[in-house]
Amino acid sequence: MTIRLKEDERIDQIMQYGLDIIQSPSVFSFSLDAILLGEFAKVPRHDRARIVDLCSGNGAVALMISQQTKSKVTAVEIQDRLVDMAERSIELNGLRDQIEIVHEDVNTLTGYIPKDSVDVITCNPPYFTVSEASKKNPNEHLAIARHELHLTLKELMSVTSGLLKTKGKAFFVHRPERFLEIMDAMREVDLAPKRIQFIHPKAGREANIMLIEGIKRGKADGLKILPPLVVYDDNGDYFPEVRRMIYGNESD
Amino acid sequence: MTIRLKEDERIDQIMQYGLDIIQSPSVFSFSLDAILLGEFAKVPRHDRARIVDLCSGNGAVALMISQQTKSKVTAVEIQDRLVDMAERSIELNGLRDQIEIVHEDVNTLTGYIPKDSVDVITCNPPYFTVSEASKKNPNEHLAIARHELHLTLKELMSVTSGLLKTKGKAFFVHRPERFLEIMDAMREVDLAPKRIQFIHPKAGREANIMLIEGIKRGKADGLKILPPLVVYDDNGDYFPEVRRMIYGNESD
Repeated sequence: MTIRLKEDERIDQIMQYGLDIIQSPSVFSFSLDAILLGEFAKVPRHDRARIVDLCSGNGAVALMISQQTKSKVTAVEIQDRLVDMAERSIELNGLRDQIEIVHEDVNTLTGYIPKDSVDVITCNPPYFTVSEASKKNPNEHLAIARHELHLTLKELMSVTSGLLKTKGKAFFVHRPERFLEIMDAMREVDLAPKRIQFIHPKAGREANIMLIEGIKRGKADGLKILPPLVVYDDNGDYFPEVRRMIYGNESD
Repeated sequence: MTIRLKEDERIDQIMQYGLDIIQSPSVFSFSLDAILLGEFAKVPRHDRARIVDLCSGNGAVALMISQQTKSKVTAVEIQDRLVDMAERSIELNGLRDQIEIVHEDVNTLTGYIPKDSVDVITCNPPYFTVSEASKKNPNEHLAIARHELHLTLKELMSVTSGLLKTKGKAFFVHRPERFLEIMDAMREVDLAPKRIQFIHPKAGREANIMLIEGIKRGKADGLKILPPLVVYDDNGDYFPEVRRMIYGNESD
């Protein structure tokens, strides 16, 4: 099978799963955040679950999730250029039967996916508010992926809660500086925060990434703060746990 | 100077500061939580600050704080038996001129300390709601110290915010399972959460203690999640950072 690469595209690997993925620095490249989310999310292994990855970008999280379940995965992405990249990556990995891409705005998704029907939602959303304009990326593709131009935090939580079944689970990766806003937005739509993991770039440094699990109509109490994850050791090498996420068990 | 010990009292040490402290297992003993709070709190070194330790118990946090500033420290405690212990510990350490104990209910404190006057408040409050009745301690002294019999979380935050100056700082130690409640109660009284540190008993275990810094009328954004602290290593020994808090720099 021949997959055509465009412009500055290249093929990278998520080695843990032996997945090939089309990346482009000028359009979208997945980062450690996507890998962390793909690891953090818990999906049923069986084939009867409805699993949706929102803000799917070039499909990295959807591809990772697909390797952990026999259920189908629906990936939702608004940008046609990214949908196209994700389509070719799915083709490249022979996952056409398992992953479906919906080229749609998350805010208008309920026409495609019934309400109260989804078991698991994953999402690596835009991190920055639009008012953080000074930092806004002049590249439109990157700006849409990183800034809340088409999807605000509140909208994301509202759509997520609407799509999930009661007791359905949502997994997000986001930035700790928006922590309280995220907690508020989740609780406003009856998505109870359940497990939180903070990621620190190095020992002795503040967290710069957070992973959150929420349960629709879950109990309000019993939030757990998981063991933290530190990415790099003092030499700038990945700690073994992160190395395993990226490269897999090298002894395999 | 002779300090009389009562019943099952004993004298323990906070070795980092060379402080002696009267403890009693049947009434009140400070724990690692107090040490962590005493380390986490930042107080001005000069002698012009107003510093208040609420729910002072046997005075461990007030004693620790006093060693980091030339300012006076006011310790507030509702239980007369604990006030008596704290008084004798202050005497024992020759700190009568620096630490004043107010035997008072935190809820009626504004008669003693003017509103909007305090630079720093520290508090190691009761952790458990009264509805958590099954776990309530039959020993009344311990029950009052651990359960919200006389002071709820909301009351604590309301009093704290009322006493603090604008930009005054509050430092709390609490349990992560009440994290969201704490965030809500703080923001309700315009006490902005600023820095949070999670304490994990061992590597790979969920956090069981949290430290929180809030600023009165601080900005809502910019919450920082500090590097985590792990208490015990795999052999059950303290990690160096915790060891230093308890024993000081042994090379000194």
